[in-house]
Amino acid sequence: MPNYRDRLDVVLRALADPTRRAIVERLAQSPAVVSELAAPFSMALPSLMQHLRVLEDAEVVSSQKHGRVRTVSLLPGALDVLHLWLAEQRTPAEHQADRLGIHLTRSSPKGIT
Amino acid sequence: MPNYRDRLDVVLRALADPTRRAIVERLAQSPAVVSELAAPFSMALPSLMQHLRVLEDAEVVSSQKHGRVRTVSLLPGALDVLHLWLAEQRTPAEHQADRLGIHLTRSSPKGIT
Repeated sequence: MPNYRDRLDVVLRALADPTRRAIVERLAQSPAVVSELAAPFSMALPSLMQHLRVLEDAEVVSSQKHGRVRTVSLLPGALDVLHLWLAEQRTPAEHQADRLGIHLTRSSPKGIT
Repeated sequence: MPNYRDRLDVVLRALADPTRRAIVERLAQSPAVVSELAAPFSMALPSLMQHLRVLEDAEVVSSQKHGRVRTVSLLPGALDVLHLWLAEQRTPAEHQADRLGIHLTRSSPKGIT
């Protein structure tokens, strides 16, 4: 299991490509077989498979082969490392805005929620 | 103003580098002058400046020169595009977990909150 920084690096490199992001976007809806994933792209199958391999090495997707059909799925929690990193980059001003938001919610008159 | 997909692409490419992420992490605390940013890295200043230029072109940071001193800041909302994209990639299972969470919160007995 790679550490947090290594994992972040691998995931960000995997996502810094529009084709791979499009694959992730499709798989966020449901798992898909490779031919379905290939359909929207005017790309040779070996190139698509290479992108899938990068995503699989980054543990963003996993795939299973049944007979001749390979089904690809988004791994649960695959993007958690990115959520975590983004949360850490909140500036003091943003934290202050959060606290103000909480304060306003708590002190709002009853009935106005 | 670039569109959402272009902006996402530029920001992810900028963040897919550990030095640039370290700069963003430092700037999330407070603005900093270039010499401060350079201090933790065993890197020639021109290389650091090149990383800063990538972040500036991606509109993740901005910089201002007063006399000989250049101060770099994280731009407010610079990472919003990434928050937005991540939110869109929530799987149906994650959406369901969210709804379940809301349901449990709403139906929890009074006094247990």
